Amino acid sequence: MTSSTEPRPTTFNPDWEAAFSPGARRLGSNAIREILKITQSPEIISFAGGLPAPELLPIEEVRAAAGTVLDTYGAAALQYSSTEGHLPLREWIAARHGISPANVQIMTGSQQGLDLLGKLLIGEGDVVLVEAPTYLGALQSFGPYGPKYAEMQTDDGGIDIDALEGQLSRLRRAGTPAKLLYCVPNFQNPTGRTLSLERRQRLVELTARFGVVVLEDDPYGALRFTGEAIPSVYELALAHCGGPESSHVIYSGSFSKVLAPGLRDAWVQAAGPMIGKLIQAKQGADLHTPTFNQMIVSELVEIVMPAQIERVRALYGARAQTMLAQMQTHFPAGVTYTAPEGGMFLWVRLPEGIDTAALLLRAVERQVAFVPGAPFFALGGGHNTLRLSFSSATTEQIGRGIQALGLTILEALA
Amino acid sequence: MTSSTEPRPTTFNPDWEAAFSPGARRLGSNAIREILKITQSPEIISFAGGLPAPELLPIEEVRAAAGTVLDTYGAAALQYSSTEGHLPLREWIAARHGISPANVQIMTGSQQGLDLLGKLLIGEGDVVLVEAPTYLGALQSFGPYGPKYAEMQTDDGGIDIDALEGQLSRLRRAGTPAKLLYCVPNFQNPTGRTLSLERRQRLVELTARFGVVVLEDDPYGALRFTGEAIPSVYELALAHCGGPESSHVIYSGSFSKVLAPGLRDAWVQAAGPMIGKLIQAKQGADLHTPTFNQMIVSELVEIVMPAQIERVRALYGARAQTMLAQMQTHFPAGVTYTAPEGGMFLWVRLPEGIDTAALLLRAVERQVAFVPGAPFFALGGGHNTLRLSFSSATTEQIGRGIQALGLTILEALA
Repeated sequence: MTSSTEPRPTTFNPDWEAAFSPGARRLGSNAIREILKITQSPEIISFAGGLPAPELLPIEEVRAAAGTVLDTYGAAALQYSSTEGHLPLREWIAARHGISPANVQIMTGSQQGLDLLGKLLIGEGDVVLVEAPTYLGALQSFGPYGPKYAEMQTDDGGIDIDALEGQLSRLRRAGTPAKLLYCVPNFQNPTGRTLSLERRQRLVELTARFGVVVLEDDPYGALRFTGEAIPSVYELALAHCGGPESSHVIYSGSFSKVLAPGLRDAWVQAAGPMIGKLIQAKQGADLHTPTFNQMIVSELVEIVMPAQIERVRALYGARAQTMLAQMQTHFPAGVTYTAPEGGMFLWVRLPEGIDTAALLLRAVERQVAFVPGAPFFALGGGHNTLRLSFSSATTEQIGRGIQALGLTILEALA
Repeated sequence: MTSSTEPRPTTFNPDWEAAFSPGARRLGSNAIREILKITQSPEIISFAGGLPAPELLPIEEVRAAAGTVLDTYGAAALQYSSTEGHLPLREWIAARHGISPANVQIMTGSQQGLDLLGKLLIGEGDVVLVEAPTYLGALQSFGPYGPKYAEMQTDDGGIDIDALEGQLSRLRRAGTPAKLLYCVPNFQNPTGRTLSLERRQRLVELTARFGVVVLEDDPYGALRFTGEAIPSVYELALAHCGGPESSHVIYSGSFSKVLAPGLRDAWVQAAGPMIGKLIQAKQGADLHTPTFNQMIVSELVEIVMPAQIERVRALYGARAQTMLAQMQTHFPAGVTYTAPEGGMFLWVRLPEGIDTAALLLRAVERQVAFVPGAPFFALGGGHNTLRLSFSSATTEQIGRGIQALGLTILEALA
């Protein structure tokens, strides 16, 4: 019993800033979070988020699959399950990529793959090569592990391999060899650029020669609406290195863009020792990806997904074309942009001196939103760039939104 | 073009061990994973896994809720959603705990809460206080961040608070003050022990005085089958510290044991600055918990969950009683064990000199499995202890399994 005359013990008054770990302090801005918030306002035409077109999300197919899963698996669909993931789903993925299920680990969204691979491969100060610009979610996943980023030179064809060779040599000579190379070869986020077959082949050879682990992030690969499909870097590495166990390339795939992001189902393909560590890391991270969701996805991959991919490709292709046509009409001279062959994004470069973070505020006044480009650069810069997503806006919205954005840019240039 | 006479470039032959980060190297054994594997063999009576009773998993309720969610939310149920989590679910949790939804973050299973809180709070070498024994999944989550563990003395009433006070003083004097205290006050995993109200009160006062952040892990709190409910450490801290914003206690709750683990839905309650960092960390970890699952859980909490909790309590209470009665009959003298008031586990101590890891192999020969106790100790020891789960075996299986285990122990003692 505490006597009431006793002074009340001093309370902690927690100083959270002081309590945070070095990793926590490295966590950057809330860029994606703020983006998602803007997209939630219904009066804004948003080209900001990377949201799949809602009208194509397979609601009835998921309803049917959920029923089938509960009929088929009963309680097992709601129970704990193995960390590796639902075996039929891993088998399906493995068969499609000509590897063993032992080389496949299911992830709770591909973001989890980036986080856990970062945790396992990046020690403080390790050199990580990224495209400039690169997917900002990867920077957010890797950040807490303390990487030292080196930006790769890029052009309209993606990574400049000649420049990369010189960079790898210089880094090695400087005693700071590159540890990991992160890239999005298909319809890159944020630029929409695609790496050619020849560059992929050279990338595999070069990184094998320099002993650099490659993380190939491929959420959009299936969403090609024009041009010829190109083998993945992973696939080329299988041929070059002699199979999945001797490949230094790790592949990250996802069902978010071809089925439904709200189920959070994705996977990683890698050599056995890497998968073994991933399993351990994933146990500590979330034990396993939701059982129910993996089973639902597994029901959908065979019949529903191919048709779904066709629908998505057709719609996104049409929307990209509409957006490009509108940009040609409404964007002033001096503004350049990419013309992607697939995916969800294109990349806009404004004349030097325009700050797209400030431009966004003006654009929102005109009811249109985009993502300023700067957060996509690991080492800063890119203040005159921005990312547009064409996946979730209608033709009418694209027309209105691009016109409003064109006016906003004109005003900023005046 | 590469000439065919040119020597084939040397391939990497990836040395994954060399590529792994220090955090990856700290990842320990695959204890939980191996446990789950044993439980999957149908001929084995398993007291190993902490699996909810499959016959109580609410299959039809989940089926109905999935339908309602797709009817109500349509595409939004399958779309990306906010990192914080589904607002109605956060509001429901907040109302139940007398706090604001701003103090609630949804997690992909409580394991994710442990991982992200470890990432945010544990810097390399930070002193983390844990019970001896403690939940081994917490050790697995925290491990990669490089904690220096200090074990708290425990007795049948859980953490010994007098001993803790001395330990906190000594650590502070040594210049290595405790940073974080991790505990499971209700029906602890692995011991089944419960911390008394008086000890909880003193724990709050003591940690507030010493400036130690407390992480209260409470997955089993609702599963009390005997005795009186005790306020959580978090609740006592709210009163002691003057509200959620000045509380140094972080609370981790879960729907896994009261609804379905396969949905992977859980949450963390904490002060605003801590939640703010958690949101950033979770963005990098998996963007958000699956939208569909959060909406399903939100459908179930009001009507289905209370009845579900009653069913679970009644069944686990009966099974615990059966197991204790069988142990009294079949276990030899010199074997002691806990008698939990709730949860899923009890803890057995065999005479010194018996190694329960070796015993497990003999037990499996007799078709019964448990978890050896040693992995639950952060600093080693406990080789003569083991954990039994009574949640998922039938009365008949408990009878047969405990008899087989009793024979195995007798044999080992002989």
